[in-house]
This record gives sequence, C-alpha cells and structure tokens, in this order.
Amino acid sequence: MGIVVQKYGGSSVADAAGIKRVAQRIVNTKKAGHQVVVVVSAMGDTTDELIDLANEVSPLPPARELDMLLTAGERMSMAVLAMAIHDLGHEARSFTGSQAGVITDAEHGKAKIIDVTPGRIQTAIDEGAIAIVAGFQGVSQTTKDITTLGRGGSDTTAVALAVALRADVCEIYSDVDGIFTADPRIEPHARKVPRISYEETLEMAAQGAKILHLRCVEYARRYDMPIHVRSSFSEKEGTWVVKAEDVAQEESMEAAIITGVAHDRSQAKITVVGVPDKPGEAAAIFRAVADAQINIDMIVQNVSAAATSLTDISFTLPSGEGQTAMTALDRLKAEVGFDGLQYDDSIGKVSIVGAGMSSSPGISARFFEALSEAGVNIEMISTSEIRVSVVVAESQVQDAVNAAHAAFDLGSDEIEAVVYGGTGR
Amino acid sequence: MGIVVQKYGGSSVADAAGIKRVAQRIVNTKKAGHQVVVVVSAMGDTTDELIDLANEVSPLPPARELDMLLTAGERMSMAVLAMAIHDLGHEARSFTGSQAGVITDAEHGKAKIIDVTPGRIQTAIDEGAIAIVAGFQGVSQTTKDITTLGRGGSDTTAVALAVALRADVCEIYSDVDGIFTADPRIEPHARKVPRISYEETLEMAAQGAKILHLRCVEYARRYDMPIHVRSSFSEKEGTWVVKAEDVAQEESMEAAIITGVAHDRSQAKITVVGVPDKPGEAAAIFRAVADAQINIDMIVQNVSAAATSLTDISFTLPSGEGQTAMTALDRLKAEVGFDGLQYDDSIGKVSIVGAGMSSSPGISARFFEALSEAGVNIEMISTSEIRVSVVVAESQVQDAVNAAHAAFDLGSDEIEAVVYGGTGR
Repeated sequence: MGIVVQKYGGSSVADAAGIKRVAQRIVNTKKAGHQVVVVVSAMGDTTDELIDLANEVSPLPPARELDMLLTAGERMSMAVLAMAIHDLGHEARSFTGSQAGVITDAEHGKAKIIDVTPGRIQTAIDEGAIAIVAGFQGVSQTTKDITTLGRGGSDTTAVALAVALRADVCEIYSDVDGIFTADPRIEPHARKVPRISYEETLEMAAQGAKILHLRCVEYARRYDMPIHVRSSFSEKEGTWVVKAEDVAQEESMEAAIITGVAHDRSQAKITVVGVPDKPGEAAAIFRAVADAQINIDMIVQNVSAAATSLTDISFTLPSGEGQTAMTALDRLKAEVGFDGLQYDDSIGKVSIVGAGMSSSPGISARFFEALSEAGVNIEMISTSEIRVSVVVAESQVQDAVNAAHAAFDLGSDEIEAVVYGGTGR
Repeated sequence: MGIVVQKYGGSSVADAAGIKRVAQRIVNTKKAGHQVVVVVSAMGDTTDELIDLANEVSPLPPARELDMLLTAGERMSMAVLAMAIHDLGHEARSFTGSQAGVITDAEHGKAKIIDVTPGRIQTAIDEGAIAIVAGFQGVSQTTKDITTLGRGGSDTTAVALAVALRADVCEIYSDVDGIFTADPRIEPHARKVPRISYEETLEMAAQGAKILHLRCVEYARRYDMPIHVRSSFSEKEGTWVVKAEDVAQEESMEAAIITGVAHDRSQAKITVVGVPDKPGEAAAIFRAVADAQINIDMIVQNVSAAATSLTDISFTLPSGEGQTAMTALDRLKAEVGFDGLQYDDSIGKVSIVGAGMSSSPGISARFFEALSEAGVNIEMISTSEIRVSVVVAESQVQDAVNAAHAAFDLGSDEIEAVVYGGTGR
C-alpha cells in the first residue's frame, strides 16, 4: 500500500498502441493497491523532431528557448497518457516538471535538481488519482524559467520524485528486461542479474553498459532509493539496484565475485610519441587537453628508452572529442617538443565489475589469462576497487567479452531472447 | 516609445520561413523605438495534429488533459520565434500563458480571463527584451491547472495583455490586409475600411464576416484598446478598430452610412409547420431547442391562416446543430401537435452594418429595393440598431452581397488583389 514511482522511456510510449499498453500497466499497479506516480519521456522521436525544428530556424538556438521547445515533448506524452488512463476508468492528472515541484538551477540544457517539492503530486495521489509527471524538466529556482535536465534526465526525475515522496521503489521501464552480466547481443549466454549494488551499477554504466544513467544511480545511492529496472513489454521481474549490504545478504551463500562484463566501443586512443622525459611535460599535455574540455579516461606512460630519454604517452577519450583534442595538442608540438601524434578510434574497452573483487585476490590475473588464451592483445589497463578495465582492438571486443564472461562463470545455460538497448533520455 | 502588442496567427508562422519573416517584422517594430510584446498561435496545422493524436488514444479525452496537450502547440511556436529573433541580434524571451500572468477560470477548453498580471512581461520589456507570449492559454486561479481559452483565444490574449500593459495599440496580424466592406472573394470591388467602430465590428463578426472574434472585440471595447487589423505579408496600413467617436471624428466630412456587407453561409433554417395558434406553443418549441443547447438566430412566425388557426414558425441556427435540433423537436410533435418539420440548409444570411444607419431613415427600404432589382427573394428579416439582415437562398448570396455593396456606394474603382480569410484561433 505504498507509493510506487514508474518511469517509462520514449520507446515504451512511441505511439498510440504503446501509450495504451503502458496505461494498462499503470492501472494494474494502481489496482494492486499502490499509489502510483508516473514519470514519462517524450514519445519516440519527438525530441529529435523538435531539435530539427529548432535547427531549421536557428543554427545555434539560445538554451533557454531550446528548453522551452523541448519540454513540449513530455507535455504531449503525459497528456495523452493521462487520457488513455481515463479511458480505462481511472483518474489521471498530468503535471509539468514545474507543477510537480522539480526545482533546478538555471543551467539550461543540463540543469541540476536542487529541490523537489511535490505538494501537488502528493495531493493528487491522496485524492486517489494517478499522477503523471513530465520527465527531463524542471523550473529554475532563481529565474523561474523552464529548464531541462540533460542526458538521463527522465530517470533522474523519477528517482528524485521517489525520494521526495518517500516511495517504496522507483521502477525504470524500457525495452530491456533488466541489467545483464554482459550485452546479450554479443554474449549469448548473458544472464539477467536479479540484484546489483549501486556501486557496481555505476561502474557498469561508466564502463559503457547502456543501462541506467550514472546520474540517477548516484541520486538513488545518496538517498538509498531502490530502483527496479524492468521491461514495459513483459511482466517479468527485472533487476533490483540496491545498497551493497542488501545484495550481499541475499546472495551470501554463494557470492558472485564478478557481477558483469561491460564494454564500450565509443572511445578513441591518442598517443603522443617521443615526449622528452622530464618534469612538467606530461602536465603541459594534459593541461592542453583539459582546457579543450575533453574528458580523458585511461592514461598509460611507457618507460622511457634509456638511449633517447624520450617516452610515449597514450590516453583514451570519447571518439567524438578526438578532433578537438588532436587540434589542441598539435598547437603544443613545438613548445613541448614531442615527435608526433597518433590517433586510433578502432579500439574498445572491456571491463569486469564486481563488489567481491576487493576481497578476492587473483581476479586480474584470471581476467588477463582468459584474454590471452582467447588471443586478445591488451593495449592498456586500468583498475578501481571493484573494476578491471582493458583496452583492446575493436575487432577483439566480442572475443574479450566472451572470454571474460566464461572465465568467471557468469553465463546461464539457456540463451536469453532479449534485445539489449539503451533507456530513453 | 510606447508598448505595442502584436498577435500573429498560425498561418503567419506556419513554417520556418514564416517564422523568420515574422521575426524580422517584430525586430523592425523594436528598432522603431517600441517596446514589443508578441502573442503567437500554434504553427499552421499543429493544433489539428494534436487533436488527431488525442483522438487516436481516446474517443473523448478529458478536458483538463486536452488543454495540457493543446498548449504544447504555442509552446513550440513561441520558442522557435524567440530563437529566430535571437538570430537577428535581439533578445527575446518566451513565456507560457501561466508565466505571462493570464489568469482564468477553470472551464477547460473555453476558459474566461479573469485577471492578467503581466509582471514578468513588464520586467522583460523593461530590460530591453522582446517578450513572446503563448496565445490561447492561461492558468486557472482556483485549480492552478493549465487552461485554454477556446475560439478566438489568441486574439483575446493579445487584447487582454495590451490592456494590462497599457499598450498604445494591439496589432492583430493574419493573411488579410484588414477589414473589408465585403468579402473580396465574392465582391471584387470590396474596399478596405480604414477605421471602424467596435460596435460595427461586432455586428460584422456576428453576421459571419471572418475578421476578428467577437470576444476580443468585446474585450477591446470594454477597455477602449485600439486594435489594428493588418497583414503579416505586407507593410500596408490595415484597419483600425476604435471607439465610435473616433471613427466619426475622422470621417465627419462624409460619414459613410453603411460600413460593410457581411454574409454567412453556415446557417440552416428549420420550419415547424402547422403549429396550433394558441398561447404557450411557441414557448414549448423554443424551450425544447434551448434545452438541446442550440443557439438560434432569427425567428419568423407567420400570421395564422384564419380558417385553420394554424401557424408556421421558422428559425435559423448553425447548420452543424441542425440534426440535434430536429431530433429534439421531433420528440415534441405529439405533445404540441404540429404537422411537421422542414429543414433547409441551402440558405445564406446577408447583412448591412453601419453606425450611421440609426440616424438615416430609409436604409432598409434601399436595401430591400436593391435586392428586389437583383431578383433576390427575401425569406426572413431581422434588424438591430446598426444592422439589417436578410435570409436568402444560398444560391443568391453573391447576388445579394453585390447588390447591397453597389446600392450603398461601398466599392472602390480598383479591384483589391487580396485573399480574404479568417484569422487564426
């Protein structure tokens, strides 16, 4: 008899049929005795169409007005979803982000939530109605202008509302059944994980698994709000994202050391060749990259060759930022005195993630052996408390994932028939 | 150096090119030294598309949610219009009806404005920005829900804002050059009227001229706000709608007795045949029609034939409501004891309107003579202080308009090359 917050992504409400299907699911939850608050994204490709419209009129639309335009998308989906619920005989009231009390800073296009005051939502559900809230949007505390939250915004809206309403759970619906031990498109034995910790989910997401956005998981972790990741196309239980103690408790008999294998093909590698091996040179290089607003990920510096006192420095970055970084570094060539730059976007990153890793020695060794036996060459390595990542050639990503998955016995015998994709915005 | 409120209808902002054109016109007004507030309708067919979307999901969408959905239309047009103005180097800020302080009652789909508190608009223009306001929408004072104003809503928003901001003028833009002495599509000598009184405009609009909505003219008359009706496709002066004294003053040398000829093909006529001529029978008939929420316009009761004590009662009504009225009346047949019902939607109404009429005897006679000479048969007649209307066969509407136009010397020698159409919502 508690409050359930449900979030449906754009693919779940892409057309009238999808909206009716989702409406039925919401009504079922209500009938089961819950108070239901629904957060919804824009229908299907609406957001892209609105961006196209803006670009038709203006090459660089002002952020305030772009937010005003884009928020029309959720306004449409939430209103028609409320209509579909009415047709099933239940009262539903839609609310904009502003009406729902989602208060943000004034950073248009990437606003941060600074407070949630869901008085109208609480009233609506107390009066027996289902509340439908526009995801992705809020209102600036200072300017009172409409803002959008940027990538992962709707998931974050849902978690933030769940926290503010003291909901029992925040359910995030997409077209995927949950979080898997690996991407089922490249690992046929991938298995749905029943429970996973916030920390592991953050590592998986940061290492390229397209599951939940970092931001909403961080929010949920801070306030200990359980997230249930599940598919709007099936009735199956999905994956519960909860605090580490609750995962351990549940699986104490046979704790998995590794929870999953993540991979990411969206990175590129830049190598700065022949850098003089003296203090301050590496700092100058990374200062130039940072000044260009590039997010670098992994860094490797070779031992300098004794004869020349020259070293090579390699780092990875999102391939979309490659051109900017190369231009910034090229300007530095004479000043630092390196020999040249190499750019390679045919790389991939494969990571194993697991909370049990820190207490189990030899995990890295087992991972590297498995890669070696599969003929996969490791180009770079980085580690954290609960993760080991390697950079390999893009052509070897699938082999690497399969080898790691098998080496840590992650697979199920049956092959899951699911499509693994991203959640909506 | 005063405040100018401009309203652009959906046909003026139908696509990116239209939006850029309108943006340039707004910037020109700003450059001329005015503070500019713009009220905009949804782009082209957006509103119809949103209604289609609603109908796909729900046969009878709840009014609150339909308002939430439809208001997405102006949200889009106002945001992209603000973008286009930015690109011309001027600051523009868009505001929803709620943000602009358009406070209404809670009648979704046909809300009435009960207050306008344009604090944010005043601040925006005082800071040198152009304010863009969504037409057609407001926020309920009691429920805080988003409302729409119904037909003519955007025009009314513009006039109400102009009044609240103490603007110099409210300019209403459409694809028509102004108010004409008759519809130029059927009267090639129709002439643009330079000035017309609120009262004459109301009569013209009520008698079928598709110019301004009654509602916005009533609002302007109540607060004496001058309206300038003009085309967004040309730089020509349009028609000024002002108080009667100002029209008379201007044209005192040669006051036109008749301002224009309006016509309306959207009416139908119902005749109740053989009604017993005794007290209460007519009342019963019109009570039945009123109970069915039918708006009747003209009524004619024939003198009863002495031999039978039976009479015929005819009245006109919007043809869209004809079926409902016929059904309501048919139920009454036995009770009242009339012989039958006749339905005719091949009729038209032609009206002459002019403030000078009341002080000039013989106007009706001249009108009827002109119709007679043109071979037009009059079926019904009604008059007001400043109007004479006749019902004729639909096939004779054009002849009747031409005859009246010529009889009162309304024509210009040159034929205006304009398209005469309705304003947006």
